[in-house]
Order: sequence, then C-alpha cells, then structure tokens
Amino acid sequence: MKIFDIPGFPNPLRIRIVLAEKGLGSQIEFSKIDLLAAEHKQPAFLEINPLGTVPVLQLDDGTNISECTAITEYLDNLDGNPILTGKTPKEKAIIHMMQKRAESELADPVGYYFHHATPGLGAALQPYKSPEWEGRIEWGNRQRDKAVAGMHYFDQLLRSQPYIAGEQFSMADITVYAGLIFAGFASIAIPNQCSALLAWQAKVQQRPSVKNPA
Amino acid sequence: MKIFDIPGFPNPLRIRIVLAEKGLGSQIEFSKIDLLAAEHKQPAFLEINPLGTVPVLQLDDGTNISECTAITEYLDNLDGNPILTGKTPKEKAIIHMMQKRAESELADPVGYYFHHATPGLGAALQPYKSPEWEGRIEWGNRQRDKAVAGMHYFDQLLRSQPYIAGEQFSMADITVYAGLIFAGFASIAIPNQCSALLAWQAKVQQRPSVKNPA
Ligand SMILES: N[C@@H](CCC(=O)N[C@@H](CS)C(=O)NCC(=O)O)C(=O)O
Ligand SMILES: N[C@@H](CCC(=O)N[C@@H](CS)C(=O)NCC(=O)O)C(=O)O
Repeated sequence: MKIFDIPGFPNPLRIRIVLAEKGLGSQIEFSKIDLLAAEHKQPAFLEINPLGTVPVLQLDDGTNISECTAITEYLDNLDGNPILTGKTPKEKAIIHMMQKRAESELADPVGYYFHHATPGLGAALQPYKSPEWEGRIEWGNRQRDKAVAGMHYFDQLLRSQPYIAGEQFSMADITVYAGLIFAGFASIAIPNQCSALLAWQAKVQQRPSVKNPA
Repeated sequence: MKIFDIPGFPNPLRIRIVLAEKGLGSQIEFSKIDLLAAEHKQPAFLEINPLGTVPVLQLDDGTNISECTAITEYLDNLDGNPILTGKTPKEKAIIHMMQKRAESELADPVGYYFHHATPGLGAALQPYKSPEWEGRIEWGNRQRDKAVAGMHYFDQLLRSQPYIAGEQFSMADITVYAGLIFAGFASIAIPNQCSALLAWQAKVQQRPSVKNPA
C-alpha cells in the first residue's frame, strides 16, 4: 500500500497514528506531496484525489482512498479486529458521531480560519484556498471563535469520560488530537480553563502511537 | 427506539430511507421537532444534541445518536448484515469516502447557501444560523457555486458507474439524493448537461425505500 502525504501535517498525522496503533507502518510506502508548492492542486494529483487534499491511501489494486475517516475504516478493519472504529453497532455509531463533531466543531473551523484569515500555507496555495472576497477575514475569525467553542465542548465532555467517544480510545480521539495540533499551527490557544481537555491531551501524548507515529 | 426529526426535511429523509431499506420503520417512534420555531436550538433539545440538528436517534437505553452517518452505521449494522455501509474494508472505505464527498461537495454547501444567502427557514431560526455579517451573502453565493460544481463532479462519476460508491446502492447514494432535494428547496437547479446525474436521480426515485420512506 502507498500513502501520498506530507509528514508533520495534521491530517497525515491522523493516519500515521492509526498505522502505529494497528502495527501497519512497515507495510506502507510513503510518497511526499509538496503542499507549499500546491502540488496537490495540479492535474496529476487531482487524478488521485479530485478534492486535492492529503492523505490518500492507494491500495495495491490502484484504488485511491481519500478522507481520513474512510482510510481509518479501511486500515482498522483489515485484520477483522477493529480497535479504533468500534465493534458493536452502538460503538460504531458513537465513534462516528464524535468523529464528525471533531471535524465540524474543531478541525474544520481551524482550517477555515487558517486559510482565510491568516496567510495560511503561503502564496502558492492561497489562490486555491481563499480567493479574494470582501468578508473572508471576518468569516475566518468567526470560524476561529467556533473552534474555541469546540474546545470548550470537548473539555466539558472529558469532565465525565476518559475519551472522546466514551471509555475507549478511538479514531475520534485521534481527530481531536490532530485538530489541537492544527490549532497550534494557527496560533489558536487552548483556553486555560479547559483543564480536562489539557489533561486528556497530555495523556494522549503519552501513547506509543502518538509518540512514534508511522 | 425513538427518532427526533421533522418529516420532509432532507437529513431526516436520509434516515427514513435507511429505515425503509432495512425494514425497521415499525420499530421507531417519531417525535416531531418544530424547526421553524427553532425548537432544536432551545436548551431541552440541546441536551439531546448539543449541535442543535435533526435527526437524532434515541436508543432504548437513552443514548442519543446524532449525525446521519452515525445513525446509519447503527441501523445498518443492527442485524449483522450491513447493506448500506459496506461489508469488506474496501467497501467501507469507498462508501465513507463518497459519503463525505456527498456532504462536503453538495449537501453542506447547499445548506450554507440556503441559510446565508436566502431567508432560509425564516425569521425565528435565522439568528442561530446566520448572524448578520458583511460578507455573508457573497459567501453563501460562493457555496451555491460549489454545490453546482459538486453536481458536475457526481455527474462525471455516474458516467462510468451505476451508483455513487460503485456497483451497489449505498448510504452515499442516499446522501447525494437528499442533497439534491435540499438543492431543490434552495432553488439551485441541476444543470441540464448533468444527464448521468439526472438519470441516476430518476432511477433512485423508483426504489421502494425512496417512494415510501419510513
Ligand atoms: N477531510 C480531509 C481533510 C484533508 C486535509 O484538509 N488535509 C490537509 C493537510 S493537513 C490538506 O491537504 N491541505 C491542503 C489543502 O487543502 O490545500 C480528510 O479527512 O482527509
Ligand atoms: N450533519 C448533520 C446535519 C443535520 C442537519 O443539518 N439537519 C437539518 C434538517 S435537514 C437541521 O437540523 N437544520 C436546522 C438547523 O441546522 O438549525 C447530520 O448528518 O445529521
């Protein structure tokens, strides 16, 4: 299997943590995409992922899988023993609900802020991410505020349960964790009052898969 | 099991089609939420879904599941024979990838356009959906253009395969179908050139679950 990504970026990190959790890192060949040069917006890469984002998992039969949720479903189910996406219908449901919230309430708004209200990844990429339009800074700033509200939401949740989807670590924890890293890139600080979120972050940081992602 | 929703709306419809596909309609008690009166943004409903959207599936043990993807995972896996979310790792991955694209490239931008650049669901809800800000009409209009680009994307895809995720009908078809209904609400027409998308829509309309959702 092959993965197109760039090390150190938040969405690629999600999958590299999944690979480490599943012990699959050695089965992957990585191919680096130059995001700063907007390589992922050129025709060759758009053949692989028409949405022009990384990571993409390419199976040995040539099938391209984009979207971290989809890639995680694949990798987690390969050995018939899912540990990140749930085993029972209820586990699957809660994990997918929280995965979606991790994206819509944290990772996505951080990205919108970063690409619209700051210089983002720089001049080569900006035209693809945020063409000039009047309200874009204000819109970006509103998304930053939404991301901070998301931090408070997850903080509240973690006051009564150890992980984002309940008792067990899951893909939703990975997504919140990567969302916080992305927030750091974008200089959106975690409010000090979010003590449960900060404690959870420190705990997740100690996981072998997070210390040594693929 | 109980579902909080409102008949006739696109996301509730997604789950009512799932229920019909799975033959589970008779096992559900429906509880109507008055969206036009913003009932879903009041504290009582926010206890059930802090994001303030419908549908929500309430299990008999009181667990609340929001997000159509999560609800579909639950209902489809209940009998151990998933027909909408994939059986193999590869099927699951492709369906989740296309499910996400159906949301990000079609249903979500239609919603942003509808709630930001049109009167949306009316005066009671508008303050929750789109507070006044300078660029919001322009941003809404850009989202309409994105939704139309999404229609062209799915049209292209359907020129070489019968369903959104490949050979089989799946939850991704339901999401695109509901997205097109939402586009209709918002008066975003499907371009005439999208003949494969229009033919697929006519075919999906003939499914018993779509003719008679729960
Ligand atoms: N929803 C996508 C998000 C992927 C994404 O946005 N990746 C970032 C890298 S962290 C990217 O490709 N950014 C460059 C761009 O959007 O142009 C997923 O789950 O994989
Ligand atoms: N991502 C959610 C979207 C749900 C959604 O937006 N539902 C609409 C009804 S079609 C809603 O609640 N709209 C009212 C609002 O957002 O205030 C899902 O998959 O369930």
